[in-house]
Amino acid sequence: MAFFKFEPVKNWRSYIPILDVLRRYRSGDFSHDAVAGIILGVITVPQAVAYAFLAGLPPEAGLYACLLPMLMYAILGSSRELVVGPVAVAALMVAATVKEFAPAYSYEYLSIATIISLQAGLLLWILRLSRMGGVVNLLSHPVVSGFVNAAALIIILSQLLPFTGQASEVGNNTWDNLLSLSGSIEKINPFALAIGAGGLVVLWLTQRFGYLILRPFSSRDTEELMQSPITRVGPMIVVLLSVLAVIGFNLDGNYAVSTVGAIPAGLPSLTVPPFDLELWIDLAPSSAIIALVAYVESFTVATTLATRRRQRVNSHQDLIALGAANIGAAFTGAYPVAGSFSRSSVNFAAGARTPISAMVCAVVVVITLIALTPLFARLPQAALAAIIASSVYSLIDFRSLRGHWRFYHHDVITHVVTMIAVLAIDVETGLLIGVATSIALFIRRSSRPTVTLIGRIPNSEVYRSTKHHDVETFGHVAAVRIDENIYFANANQIENRLLKVVQQKPRTRHLLIVMSAVNLIDVSGLEMLRRVNENLSRMDIKLHIAEVKSKVMDALKTTELPTAISGNIFFSTDQAMRDLADRG
Amino acid sequence: MAFFKFEPVKNWRSYIPILDVLRRYRSGDFSHDAVAGIILGVITVPQAVAYAFLAGLPPEAGLYACLLPMLMYAILGSSRELVVGPVAVAALMVAATVKEFAPAYSYEYLSIATIISLQAGLLLWILRLSRMGGVVNLLSHPVVSGFVNAAALIIILSQLLPFTGQASEVGNNTWDNLLSLSGSIEKINPFALAIGAGGLVVLWLTQRFGYLILRPFSSRDTEELMQSPITRVGPMIVVLLSVLAVIGFNLDGNYAVSTVGAIPAGLPSLTVPPFDLELWIDLAPSSAIIALVAYVESFTVATTLATRRRQRVNSHQDLIALGAANIGAAFTGAYPVAGSFSRSSVNFAAGARTPISAMVCAVVVVITLIALTPLFARLPQAALAAIIASSVYSLIDFRSLRGHWRFYHHDVITHVVTMIAVLAIDVETGLLIGVATSIALFIRRSSRPTVTLIGRIPNSEVYRSTKHHDVETFGHVAAVRIDENIYFANANQIENRLLKVVQQKPRTRHLLIVMSAVNLIDVSGLEMLRRVNENLSRMDIKLHIAEVKSKVMDALKTTELPTAISGNIFFSTDQAMRDLADRG
Repeated sequence: MAFFKFEPVKNWRSYIPILDVLRRYRSGDFSHDAVAGIILGVITVPQAVAYAFLAGLPPEAGLYACLLPMLMYAILGSSRELVVGPVAVAALMVAATVKEFAPAYSYEYLSIATIISLQAGLLLWILRLSRMGGVVNLLSHPVVSGFVNAAALIIILSQLLPFTGQASEVGNNTWDNLLSLSGSIEKINPFALAIGAGGLVVLWLTQRFGYLILRPFSSRDTEELMQSPITRVGPMIVVLLSVLAVIGFNLDGNYAVSTVGAIPAGLPSLTVPPFDLELWIDLAPSSAIIALVAYVESFTVATTLATRRRQRVNSHQDLIALGAANIGAAFTGAYPVAGSFSRSSVNFAAGARTPISAMVCAVVVVITLIALTPLFARLPQAALAAIIASSVYSLIDFRSLRGHWRFYHHDVITHVVTMIAVLAIDVETGLLIGVATSIALFIRRSSRPTVTLIGRIPNSEVYRSTKHHDVETFGHVAAVRIDENIYFANANQIENRLLKVVQQKPRTRHLLIVMSAVNLIDVSGLEMLRRVNENLSRMDIKLHIAEVKSKVMDALKTTELPTAISGNIFFSTDQAMRDLADRG
Repeated sequence: MAFFKFEPVKNWRSYIPILDVLRRYRSGDFSHDAVAGIILGVITVPQAVAYAFLAGLPPEAGLYACLLPMLMYAILGSSRELVVGPVAVAALMVAATVKEFAPAYSYEYLSIATIISLQAGLLLWILRLSRMGGVVNLLSHPVVSGFVNAAALIIILSQLLPFTGQASEVGNNTWDNLLSLSGSIEKINPFALAIGAGGLVVLWLTQRFGYLILRPFSSRDTEELMQSPITRVGPMIVVLLSVLAVIGFNLDGNYAVSTVGAIPAGLPSLTVPPFDLELWIDLAPSSAIIALVAYVESFTVATTLATRRRQRVNSHQDLIALGAANIGAAFTGAYPVAGSFSRSSVNFAAGARTPISAMVCAVVVVITLIALTPLFARLPQAALAAIIASSVYSLIDFRSLRGHWRFYHHDVITHVVTMIAVLAIDVETGLLIGVATSIALFIRRSSRPTVTLIGRIPNSEVYRSTKHHDVETFGHVAAVRIDENIYFANANQIENRLLKVVQQKPRTRHLLIVMSAVNLIDVSGLEMLRRVNENLSRMDIKLHIAEVKSKVMDALKTTELPTAISGNIFFSTDQAMRDLADRG
């Protein structure tokens, strides 16, 4: 069985890609990595605090997620640019899971988050060991984009309460949030709202016009400048300005503007995720889905960036690396991590050459933890809400749906079903429904195969559909191309179509099936071909096949069909047609 | 959306195929149909009583299932040979479902069986109206054969107790039966056992050597004679001999041999399946699965027989007909019906020309109900057990597994998983697990596509794999054929393979993808092609595609890919290779 193939043991060094990076490291690389790492750090710190807030965790958990986990990926990951750490979607999923077991910001809450992190990491390792990593492909493009759209909407809605200075319950579903918001207009804190709104404006201005600052100093064109990391420093500006406002006007003391609160200074200590079998079993499904989503997100980002440098990402190695990052998170009081699209892009654009930039970023985080925690303690929650909402807003994409509808409307159905299910039920059930929908629609689609009558394009050896092309045919030969794998979902339909072809062309003495588009025949398909062969024989019609792929032919040779078939097996359609033409 | 297509209204007569049959009926046809109908009746009556016993229903329910249901199919069905009525597998499924709700042979038990019958019939009609009949294709060959093997084993085991003259609980699972048997050797009734064993011998002799009686009177060869209906009259002989034995030696009175018991004489009266919402909801899943299995079984038998006469079965019409048959069963005190393989084969072999033979058979059943019920009342259960066991024994097939393993081992896994799940859990869960397994293995298989490097067979326009054939290639052109639909389950793998090809052939300036085996590209596939196109551009490699199927090309034309692609779209591989050869 193909499930557990023996795999030759590679050199152990190949499992630690950083060794290769260091071996080739040149002195000139470090200046690039150092600059990129410092820029990355400036962008990472506010995001880390914000996503911890989103996850219902204390702010330091977000910063801890940027230490050991980020370093684990830097050491073990196959992508040179991917930055692993806290991300919005994982934060949302953690919040939705943990809030069922413990109150937000409590010690138990963090413990449960570390269990999820540990389970997710172990699951990724198990996927690697069992070579089952391919299972993530089930999270298809429409499922992921429908899910991300819904998650972004949920996250933005979840930030409406803190944005307006009201206490919010972490991980509430969409409807709870809308409901509690509509019932509490009078509780809006105008100072918090002002900070939030101001924050959004600053973020928008930096992202849209930040590049103008660089223009006098750079010869690059506008489009390139707009990709520059300077457009991403908005969150840090918002953090600094809002903290200054809180301190300057004593907004937290005088006007009850909620802030982040005290953050313990210093590095994380070792935490051990508690073991409680029942709890572990309850959490396992959520952990599995968080692990898969984290991996899909990370792998997509890594591939996108790697191919820009003509490199490739090793999906097997990245299962190990992301698994290690999450296990690292579990033991340092952090929560599930994934590859961050925004921070990885900044890292790339800032000119990082190797994962050393992530290590420099970790130093920035350490400095923050040692020296700057008093500053973040007075950071208003409304500013965080603005940062979160603005960063997930860019994830929303509805525009591509129109084009996708024309191209392959099943995928739009999958997208919409996934999105509605995530919004209406919950993140995990929604994803599962999305995967089931995509599989069902694919099976349904391939269950209606095209069986095309073909003929020769005059003066060529090329055969094409009689419908779309002006082709030559013979009255006594029906040549059809089956445009699909022949398997259980469509064997009956193909049988029907073949018999119909023969009925509609009563002069038919030879039926030629061209198999150039058949990559697989299963037992249901084989039984169908047997029946067709027998039934055609009774009608005195010979069955021939042509252009059988080597792989399919090898399988057919294990059966009696090649000898039982009433006609011949031809190498090419042209040979078959020449031969059959003479048998008129 | 394709789910609910507008369908042109056909002439209403086309929905009642018997009208067409009657219009063309010739006087000569009747003698054939009458003979076949009488033979069919002789074979049907003992089977009907036996399967009612298997289902835990009173014997008359089995006979009633041969009246209105059989007539409904004769009037509405599209197959001329199919005989609808009680079948073993449906009986087993009914027993397994109903025993959870009511004690066997009770009035409630029968009521619940009629509800299942009604629900199954309505579901088949709903499938027809919503054009979702294709869903039965999910019950693939390996799922059905694994299921039938398990069901046959369960049925045979379930008959061990009555076979040895012991009371058995209807619908017990396999293990219960084995358990209660092993604990009750001393309770064996030797007279019942003798009847059962004698019955098996008679059945075997008739089936194996029955044709010898015909030989002196027939000029047909042995093989043809062995297919004669005379080999199927064993059950009727067993019934007659065992009833004579019971009457002659007063076995039921003196030796406590269990018999069928009193059967009410006369025709069924109208029964109305009781309506109880909660019960209906509880029964619905089982009814749905019984309906699907009944339909798959019927359609398979009908197709097999129809093609022997160069006819075709209309799958849509048969949903209506089988639905009507089951609804008819519900209102006449019967239970779910399906097309019987053994009786349909007899009908065919006995020379039936039209469904009139089934009507003659119904007359035989009516005569039995009016005049022969006292005879059946003293029929020993051990004889029924022998009839049941011998008729399902022929369904068991393990021999084909070996060949299937060589041909496509995934299907053998599906077969075995289905069989074990049916045996270990229950019929419905087992079937669902089987369907899920077949889909998962199919997706898994197609997620590992073959991306084949191809070259020209010298002096031809034919291109084949460089691995299997001695072909011509160019150093600056990598021509690959993707042997699978490009969709979510394999888009990442295909991308990897394409980039690997280019990496391994560093002189490549042109990558030609031959799409002759690609029947579908979904959004995940489209995004992948976009990425590959962009990434190759960065490496200064042009991407070309050739032999795109019309259907796929139409979809691609709705996107920007045809204009964005760095290379060309060629009609044929040969044109592409000629063109690219010159660009060296």
